[in-house]
Amino acid sequence: MASQAGAVSLNQKQKFMDVYTVLKSELVKDTLFEWTDDSRQWVERMLDYNVPGGKLNRGLAVIDSYNLLQEGRDLTEDELFLASVLGWCVEWFQAYFLVHDDIMDNSTTRRGQPCWYKLPKVGMIAVNDGVILRNHIPRILKKYFRDKPYYVNLLDVFNEIEFLTASGQMIDLVTTLQGEKDLSKYTLDLYRRIVLFKTSYYSFYLPVACALLMAGEKLEDHDLVKDALIKMGEYFQIQDDYLDCYGAPETIGKIGTDIEDFKCSWMVVKAVEKCNEGQRKILYENYGMENHASVAKVKALYNDLDLKGVFEEYESSVYKKLTATIEAHSSPAVQAVLKSFLSKIYKREK
Amino acid sequence: MASQAGAVSLNQKQKFMDVYTVLKSELVKDTLFEWTDDSRQWVERMLDYNVPGGKLNRGLAVIDSYNLLQEGRDLTEDELFLASVLGWCVEWFQAYFLVHDDIMDNSTTRRGQPCWYKLPKVGMIAVNDGVILRNHIPRILKKYFRDKPYYVNLLDVFNEIEFLTASGQMIDLVTTLQGEKDLSKYTLDLYRRIVLFKTSYYSFYLPVACALLMAGEKLEDHDLVKDALIKMGEYFQIQDDYLDCYGAPETIGKIGTDIEDFKCSWMVVKAVEKCNEGQRKILYENYGMENHASVAKVKALYNDLDLKGVFEEYESSVYKKLTATIEAHSSPAVQAVLKSFLSKIYKREK
Repeated sequence: MASQAGAVSLNQKQKFMDVYTVLKSELVKDTLFEWTDDSRQWVERMLDYNVPGGKLNRGLAVIDSYNLLQEGRDLTEDELFLASVLGWCVEWFQAYFLVHDDIMDNSTTRRGQPCWYKLPKVGMIAVNDGVILRNHIPRILKKYFRDKPYYVNLLDVFNEIEFLTASGQMIDLVTTLQGEKDLSKYTLDLYRRIVLFKTSYYSFYLPVACALLMAGEKLEDHDLVKDALIKMGEYFQIQDDYLDCYGAPETIGKIGTDIEDFKCSWMVVKAVEKCNEGQRKILYENYGMENHASVAKVKALYNDLDLKGVFEEYESSVYKKLTATIEAHSSPAVQAVLKSFLSKIYKREK
Repeated sequence: MASQAGAVSLNQKQKFMDVYTVLKSELVKDTLFEWTDDSRQWVERMLDYNVPGGKLNRGLAVIDSYNLLQEGRDLTEDELFLASVLGWCVEWFQAYFLVHDDIMDNSTTRRGQPCWYKLPKVGMIAVNDGVILRNHIPRILKKYFRDKPYYVNLLDVFNEIEFLTASGQMIDLVTTLQGEKDLSKYTLDLYRRIVLFKTSYYSFYLPVACALLMAGEKLEDHDLVKDALIKMGEYFQIQDDYLDCYGAPETIGKIGTDIEDFKCSWMVVKAVEKCNEGQRKILYENYGMENHASVAKVKALYNDLDLKGVFEEYESSVYKKLTATIEAHSSPAVQAVLKSFLSKIYKREK
């Protein structure tokens, strides 16, 4: 079941993309604003560049989850459209944070192309473009959900998760500032906290929260679902950190710079935990340095500490634990939703 | 009446500041998030630096307007507190946009101190700090207004006005890009559009919209109020552009850089409109240049074109028109609100 749910057909993806085209053309004609030709073209280009180019996992997960919550009943065209609209809201949300994150992290590439802010015409205008991406979400929600009983809950959940994501980003950024003075600040506890807020909530909980609301559920009744999903988010981010170092750039669509950027990555947290005094010295001297030689030294240290093996052990253990938790859940529909998520990330390479 | 309403007592300002202290201490204890000591200190410092240091006109205008809408009835402590909370939401909104604008405009000073992003420890973290400021608004609204019948309308109006403000910022930024190729793109029509969206909605309409909602009114019933307020916003921005050139830096709390920054300012729009061929050449060659000599040439041209006189004529004419419009309005309470606004900005020097 999980693997079936995890397999997204090309047709499904194409249908989802069609909804993007509808939303984009509505947004650039939004009558609340008086457009100039230049600004309409700008937004259109900005959306095409930043919104649909990812794996679309989060967006498709809304449809997938809503589908599974209906326990096999065929969705109406209207339901499928509305679930897709919510899926795109999650993708817009992600695009918004990525545009801003790339500025703050001084990144160069994203999804196999230069970061938006790196384009010569864009630069710091990207700050406002991120804000516009965020503002599109309530525009879309108002158009399609204003009359639904759960409209205010949708606004609330996007607001709350945005708050949590930005707060996670803040502890990440502020810790990096502190870490530059003292690498020992990078503990597993701090790492978990950053990941929980910066990634798990919006990537794992938000799509399912949207599906639950659309299915008429109250989010207060689903704390266990939230807990399982945010644990999967932690697993996902640990994979991300692992792939930043050991993934193939052509597969993951970017060149990892966590070492240069002094990131509080799972890799360095584990290295700090496992290293001896001599290795610690190497780490302190080379972590966060821009030059190739330093990066190579850190990577060699990761190899010496067998972080590949540590990761593989973690991956198989977390998979077992999550599977047991999911199978203990009372509702088969909810089980199916959670298994679908797990199957999509287990042993991913991008 | 207008001048009475316009005069904010020290006591009133102090009471308003007390509400800031309450809101700040609640936000840094928000249990939705798991704080670290570093992140709590960061937010506290960021709020103190960016939120309360302005003139507080927009925030106080919410209380003032709500008061006037009650036609002389004394407000209860609870009403005064809630109106103050909404006032602070408007101030938070403004702080959010100023933090981001300063990054995009490459500004150096704001409210008589270095811009937040200019502090060595801050830099691009300011992008996320802006987002956090924005996210505080729904946190505050949820805490104090979740049970009010107009809760969803508050969320909607902040969302819509944020969308319009960011869209106005976008045409401003995109026009500056285009204008660098051709100064003739800076027309009065384009100028009006930028000002309407970038400034008028949030500075003039938003405080009154908050007061109207709190007074149980429907915003759809008050289009005329909106129109009068956004016209006042245009007047306000024209003053701002004038003061950027002719205001005293120690009074306005910043050093104007509109000329260096190639801003689509009312000053340059009027200059383009009034100049002869020779003057146009001077303008084209020197507008947007960083060096003192170029700035001085542009300023000399403004003097030659008597833009001071043009501004004074505009100011007296718009004041007469607005006063007539306001006095033709049916409701004395609404008249009082609008007059209060006008009295606060007429002939302002900061």
